[in-house]
Amino acid sequence: MTRELVISLDAMGGDHAPEIVIEGASIARERVPSLKFLIFGDETKIVPLLTRFPILKNCCEVFHTDKVISADERPSQALRRGRDSSMGQSIQAVKDDKACAAVLAGNTGAQMALAKFILRTMEGIDRPALASLIPTSRGESVMLDLGANVECDENNLVQFAIMGAAFARTVLGVVKPTVAILNVGVEELKGSDVIKEADRMLREANIPMDYKGFTEGHGLGGGEVDVVVTDGFTGNIALKTAEGTAKMIANLLKRSLMESILSKIGALFASSSLQSLKNHLDPNNHNGAVFMGLNGLVIKSHGGASAKGFAAAIGVAVDMAENDLAGKITRDLTNFKNTIEETDEDEADETVIEMNIKEQT
Amino acid sequence: MTRELVISLDAMGGDHAPEIVIEGASIARERVPSLKFLIFGDETKIVPLLTRFPILKNCCEVFHTDKVISADERPSQALRRGRDSSMGQSIQAVKDDKACAAVLAGNTGAQMALAKFILRTMEGIDRPALASLIPTSRGESVMLDLGANVECDENNLVQFAIMGAAFARTVLGVVKPTVAILNVGVEELKGSDVIKEADRMLREANIPMDYKGFTEGHGLGGGEVDVVVTDGFTGNIALKTAEGTAKMIANLLKRSLMESILSKIGALFASSSLQSLKNHLDPNNHNGAVFMGLNGLVIKSHGGASAKGFAAAIGVAVDMAENDLAGKITRDLTNFKNTIEETDEDEADETVIEMNIKEQT
Repeated sequence: MTRELVISLDAMGGDHAPEIVIEGASIARERVPSLKFLIFGDETKIVPLLTRFPILKNCCEVFHTDKVISADERPSQALRRGRDSSMGQSIQAVKDDKACAAVLAGNTGAQMALAKFILRTMEGIDRPALASLIPTSRGESVMLDLGANVECDENNLVQFAIMGAAFARTVLGVVKPTVAILNVGVEELKGSDVIKEADRMLREANIPMDYKGFTEGHGLGGGEVDVVVTDGFTGNIALKTAEGTAKMIANLLKRSLMESILSKIGALFASSSLQSLKNHLDPNNHNGAVFMGLNGLVIKSHGGASAKGFAAAIGVAVDMAENDLAGKITRDLTNFKNTIEETDEDEADETVIEMNIKEQT
Repeated sequence: MTRELVISLDAMGGDHAPEIVIEGASIARERVPSLKFLIFGDETKIVPLLTRFPILKNCCEVFHTDKVISADERPSQALRRGRDSSMGQSIQAVKDDKACAAVLAGNTGAQMALAKFILRTMEGIDRPALASLIPTSRGESVMLDLGANVECDENNLVQFAIMGAAFARTVLGVVKPTVAILNVGVEELKGSDVIKEADRMLREANIPMDYKGFTEGHGLGGGEVDVVVTDGFTGNIALKTAEGTAKMIANLLKRSLMESILSKIGALFASSSLQSLKNHLDPNNHNGAVFMGLNGLVIKSHGGASAKGFAAAIGVAVDMAENDLAGKITRDLTNFKNTIEETDEDEADETVIEMNIKEQT
């Protein structure tokens, strides 16, 4: 077994578990033949399913767990009773270096709590964040935090920017990603004090990113920047608003195209073009959010994802593991810390100079 | 002059002033023949324009002002020097009962500051909010606050809910509008303390609305509720994200439909259906945000609105003025206050009972 490409899966998470988890793993395995899986969950349900996927069956190990974390379990409950659940065990496999990443669907709060507890936060990161790719008219952008932290301070936002830039360099392949903070206006005088302070800190930071200041909600769809930084409350609402709007327009478009014989004919002629647009906007094709800032890779799939969607989340795990996301973040954090210390020294020097001037006058 | 249908206009606000303001007023006048206008701004620019609109010319008065508030002026600057500007004077006309509503485009922060200073906040409202209609797949919903208050407490959110419900009853014609607070999840345990407390207060309130608890970003496009309540930061970002997403999809759709001869033929057949969808999503057709909670009606138009868009904002002003929005809010606030006082009395009664029990035991 190549250590790098072993992925642990919580077979019991998500709306259609364990079916879509197993089928998704099978699709991912077809794409990346060197993949191996550790599958955690109820073996009486998993083993019969595997008979339908003989190739997958030969490259996975099933570990039975009795406990399953339900969709409505509170994070605190999950922490108390969840360590030997399928969710806890699949994360533990990453901690124990048996898997290079865990992919889980379902209860986000419980996942976050367990992942944080088992893997601990990276040095230099106060709070992990949930990051994902979002579709834009230019391609894709990275957005974070998508809901791990309802309230954030300026240090959190700066750390999110560093982690988001590392994500973009890893997955989008941009050498110096453009980064901006989501705000109600692009002028520096707008927004909360937290946002203004994070903006100031990022302007002065020495990190491989092209910091652009603020971006507005309008800029998300246009792909104005590679990385959009925001707190988990706003990020969650912006992401879901974008998804909801896309769905609304798709419904309205369908209704419009079915309203007359002429438009039905039109839809028929344009069907292949409409299908490719549908694919670009399908959340399943952008599935796989990353809990950034932990000592180990944990990827969250949409609870309602299809098998194809779950396979996309496994794809994100493979990308992250192969391209050393954690290494990038650690190096950028160190650089950032050094900048701050230099600035502090500069400021200290200036203070000394000022004191000397005062003494002389 | 019928007092009710005089509208004051800041002719100098917005990206294409005064042209689109004058043309927009002319379109609105065609729709509502009883409309009259008081137009404030640079008469050397306004008067020549009016020669192109003889009917409008006969139902408006032009008041010259030298000062204009620029798009990047800070609210504090606008307050210091803006009272005799075209913006300040058009709001003053509402204060002086010369107009039943003011319609302004451009600098939102300056408008808010001047409107609040000149008209003052209604009794029972701590902070005014910006409310508007948003397109959904069911029709339209009301959303507030869209950016007047970057940070809000629970009392602000409750007051926004009361004002938003009055807006929906006035403009959407719903007797008992459904209302929800925007949150990162629909479970009561999610979100900030402010949101949870506002949720609790609204559950207990006695107001003509059907309070539904929390709604997520996904629900906006689907028109899950008639009124979506949120703080100004989140609301501004959600609104602009929805608009940006709609624009992105329109661009992608256009590109898809132009990519092959077949799809071009399809687009031709479906053109009338696609046009009606475009109209439904065009922000110009939902233009006209209301500064709610002031002693007087002030309607804000998008700075980049077309003449048709500006006419839509005037249409909102007419709706609000004719349907006694202010009266509805005042009555609901009084009812809400009574509920709270009753609850306080009930709690006081319970305390007395408890004390009696303790004394007896």
